[in-house]
Amino acid sequence: MRLIEFDGFGEPARVARCVEKPDPEAGPGKVLVRMEVMSINPADLLTLEGRYGVRPALPATPGTEGVGRVESLGEGVGGLTVGDLVVPLSGSCWRERLVARPETLIKLPPDIDVEQAAMLKANPATAEALLMLAELSPGDWVMQNAANSAVGRNLIQAARRHGLKTVNVVRRPEPVEALRALGGDAVLVHEGGDAETLAAAVAEATGGARVKLAIDAVGGQATAGLAASVCESGLVVNYGLLSGEPCRVDPYHLVFRDIRLQGFWLLTWFRKAGPQAAIDLYAGLIDRLAAGEIGVPVEARYPLERIGDALAHAARPQRSGKILLTT
Amino acid sequence: MRLIEFDGFGEPARVARCVEKPDPEAGPGKVLVRMEVMSINPADLLTLEGRYGVRPALPATPGTEGVGRVESLGEGVGGLTVGDLVVPLSGSCWRERLVARPETLIKLPPDIDVEQAAMLKANPATAEALLMLAELSPGDWVMQNAANSAVGRNLIQAARRHGLKTVNVVRRPEPVEALRALGGDAVLVHEGGDAETLAAAVAEATGGARVKLAIDAVGGQATAGLAASVCESGLVVNYGLLSGEPCRVDPYHLVFRDIRLQGFWLLTWFRKAGPQAAIDLYAGLIDRLAAGEIGVPVEARYPLERIGDALAHAARPQRSGKILLTT
Repeated sequence: MRLIEFDGFGEPARVARCVEKPDPEAGPGKVLVRMEVMSINPADLLTLEGRYGVRPALPATPGTEGVGRVESLGEGVGGLTVGDLVVPLSGSCWRERLVARPETLIKLPPDIDVEQAAMLKANPATAEALLMLAELSPGDWVMQNAANSAVGRNLIQAARRHGLKTVNVVRRPEPVEALRALGGDAVLVHEGGDAETLAAAVAEATGGARVKLAIDAVGGQATAGLAASVCESGLVVNYGLLSGEPCRVDPYHLVFRDIRLQGFWLLTWFRKAGPQAAIDLYAGLIDRLAAGEIGVPVEARYPLERIGDALAHAARPQRSGKILLTT
Repeated sequence: MRLIEFDGFGEPARVARCVEKPDPEAGPGKVLVRMEVMSINPADLLTLEGRYGVRPALPATPGTEGVGRVESLGEGVGGLTVGDLVVPLSGSCWRERLVARPETLIKLPPDIDVEQAAMLKANPATAEALLMLAELSPGDWVMQNAANSAVGRNLIQAARRHGLKTVNVVRRPEPVEALRALGGDAVLVHEGGDAETLAAAVAEATGGARVKLAIDAVGGQATAGLAASVCESGLVVNYGLLSGEPCRVDPYHLVFRDIRLQGFWLLTWFRKAGPQAAIDLYAGLIDRLAAGEIGVPVEARYPLERIGDALAHAARPQRSGKILLTT
């Protein structure tokens, strides 16, 4: 079978390569999954660069998420059938075949959109969990930047389901109409410069509403804009490192307006919230995916052999959708 | 009587002036206080510059804190005697005479150090309240920068009383010995550059202890150094704007190490904690002041008429103590 491997940290397209390995077998109590579609997330690029929160022992196989079908069951495995569509909760997903314990596989309904299912584990779950970080009631406003990212689009959809309104910040005008069509209540184009200009635009777009929660995927001066825009005692949550720059917050907003800044990492959230919270979260997401209520555009698909091209494409700015890997 | 007044925001030494006004009288239910010593705090400079959390209606009299003696009592005032030493809880303290409601005056013991009492309201209270922001147990380490400031010195003393250890960061070597003598467990000289260098120095100084709380009076890259130095899920609290730069925090520490950043303002703390918390806090501080356990060096004293010189002096970096005003 083919899998992606890297034995040094660096530029993703250079360090990752597709190698041939012997096919694994499902031992007793284990399940053999034939992977079909895997996604490339910013977390994967950070892992290859050595900048992620966990640095794997090398050589390693990256891949946060993907979807596959049960190919064979080891002795004593119940609850699954050959042909079942599954999402592995483990990482190292960029491979043709994967052996997993059955309790680490999320079983999907048979008629689900396979490509969307390959993007279920990280981003829709992140969007849902982010909205749990503040006490929000229907009608409340939530703000985010990088609104055209996968998490950004998931967050617009999740917020609508919860009856929340969204102020969405993007850096260029092209995605504005698509984000409005997706359900974004306000979509603002802001270059990430002056924080108070953004705060004024947010106040205008929301009619002066109290924005209690702002979600930051960018860092740098973009964080400062969110901190200036949230209401007194508001919360800014950073989950992404897109600008590569430190988050900036004017002490004025921290000291005199009681703004707080924290981070979000899905792994930490799961650890704190416990296993039942994760099970509930994914059960809800699968229902919504089956109902067609979750969807992120795909820009390109590459077979595993073309991993270099796929990673170079994923690293490009201003994409209009996700890059997927196929087996 | 003389008082300090300003009718426009700007450079403190230029906008503040000493003016002559008619002497006020203690009306019914009020107390006339003759002020003796007032301190100049960073909050006062920010107020004059228009950068503080509250912008007064102009013209206004600044002055966060000071100490005076009861000069006369209006009809129906009990609990105070002419000659009593008092700290007004209200602002606008830079004046010869002040009229106040008796419940806004903190009565001091007669033999207390008057100059130290003039510096009681803001900084020692800030230091005490800052240490309440994290769950700390005796033996725990707390970190701070600007350790040679008034709050910094108060915090070293307060931490010792609570059985806490302190890592103190200063930008130059001169105050190191004095801060050690005051009870600082570790004193590090760091220019505010590379955050990871500071984190390594803190780990060495504390023997790798978990630093749960870091106090930031500086902002800019200094905040990044604290965020890199606290333990996982640690809290960084900014209360000062000394660098004039936005607080910077690497998203790595927010996302993967669950670091949080918030601000501290004594007024917000009092509002949230309630009046009894304020009464308890000051009762404890007065006991410690009377016992000689609170003390901040004084660098210079100026009469009210020399307000311009006093403010210019207070704005200088690398002072060795507070600037006081006298009547």
